Amino acid sequence: MRDEQSPRPGRPPHPGGTPPRAERARRVADTLRQQITSGVYPHGMLPDERELGHALGATRNVVREALALLSDEGLIIRRRGIGTRIVTAKYGHGLERLTGLAETLVDYGTVTNEVRAARIVPHAPKAVTERLRLPDGSGAVYLERLRSLDGRPLSVDSTWLAPDIGRPLLDRDLAHRDVFDLIEETTGHRLGSAEVTVHAVTAEPDTARLLEIPAGAALFAIDRLTCLADGRPVDAETLRVRADRFALQALVHRGPVAPRT
Amino acid sequence: MRDEQSPRPGRPPHPGGTPPRAERARRVADTLRQQITSGVYPHGMLPDERELGHALGATRNVVREALALLSDEGLIIRRRGIGTRIVTAKYGHGLERLTGLAETLVDYGTVTNEVRAARIVPHAPKAVTERLRLPDGSGAVYLERLRSLDGRPLSVDSTWLAPDIGRPLLDRDLAHRDVFDLIEETTGHRLGSAEVTVHAVTAEPDTARLLEIPAGAALFAIDRLTCLADGRPVDAETLRVRADRFALQALVHRGPVAPRT
Repeated sequence: MRDEQSPRPGRPPHPGGTPPRAERARRVADTLRQQITSGVYPHGMLPDERELGHALGATRNVVREALALLSDEGLIIRRRGIGTRIVTAKYGHGLERLTGLAETLVDYGTVTNEVRAARIVPHAPKAVTERLRLPDGSGAVYLERLRSLDGRPLSVDSTWLAPDIGRPLLDRDLAHRDVFDLIEETTGHRLGSAEVTVHAVTAEPDTARLLEIPAGAALFAIDRLTCLADGRPVDAETLRVRADRFALQALVHRGPVAPRT
Repeated sequence: MRDEQSPRPGRPPHPGGTPPRAERARRVADTLRQQITSGVYPHGMLPDERELGHALGATRNVVREALALLSDEGLIIRRRGIGTRIVTAKYGHGLERLTGLAETLVDYGTVTNEVRAARIVPHAPKAVTERLRLPDGSGAVYLERLRSLDGRPLSVDSTWLAPDIGRPLLDRDLAHRDVFDLIEETTGHRLGSAEVTVHAVTAEPDTARLLEIPAGAALFAIDRLTCLADGRPVDAETLRVRADRFALQALVHRGPVAPRT
């Protein structure tokens, strides 16, 4: 049995046999992030460095470096003499079902929206009309909402809606309700499905100010095109979500064998 | 019909009636990112600022600012007199099915792996043995691979495997094959499913160096626990993936009405 000191013959990535500290710290940070996200530390405090080192098979120096990485991510706060506090559990958003934010987070707290824009744009940009399959030059409804969970900013959502779908929403309670929910209520029909694309980006200064995070912090930019049950696209939006408070989750199946090419 | 100059009564987010330029630039950047990712510009060049402004309903100043944001994300390169080139199309990785990277990207190019670590760790950390449901103090196999697509770095993957599953892999072609594929070949069984959690983080200096991106650039950190068809967890890993070359995609369905609480 090869042991930790003997890398594969011909592939000596770490001449000394032991990976450099930065790599070990990254590995320990990964494990801790996974544990924090999955609720291993329900009381919001991490064990001390010695105990963490034992559980994670790492020296105190490596643990300290891993904690610094997670502190940079905004996941934890370290205070001398007090210990390491988890800033906030990350809210998991499942990718199996199409849900609005307030629906998803109903168990975590109350979502409120600061409606920063809610208006009819008489001539929507061509890129928008094409995506919503509207005639060239058609109007569309534009919404921008700063969404908070229990009063703390979570995301900035920019939403374009087909005019017949969006217009009735302008008189509804956009500050407290999900757009999905309102669309279903005003049309009397369930939504069908959405194409979702998830990007990781960094916050430019304006978004950072709105979301109360440092400029340059990691963000999700989630692009979502939502269709009615008949397949008509009616809602094209980009959600910018704080990555220190939010993770995406999915249960993925292997399925049948893919054809070999 | 309310028009663009009349925000909702009582909610005048933009006193002048027009949103500030940073917001408009963000909105235009979102649309462009979506278009680039979905292959609207197959020849790899963006139209000039005037044409983009027309398609996106924005002034040239706003278009210029949006292009600067996408340039910071590493998506495009601007050259005076030549125009705006898409650095590389983003590779979409579907979240509907559990697949290895080489399987997913088979249409885009050839995935190769620099195997930086491939060894048996005699006493795996407690956090790892618990996750893989191994006895306390058990060994495990650790792999670290720098994965490239057509010779350019795409991700750093750190993988812990149950010892009976991982040991046979140490003699296989880890430089050219997916771990999923190798597990199925050596065990003779298909994998079942995986719990996937997706984080957005920024690259610390060591990861940045490996992936050849600036420190502080956005990354995906994807945590994945993969099980055999009988539900036994055998593979716990974290993938750090360059966000300028990669996006996650899913088709999400609305499904039945959720119970109200």
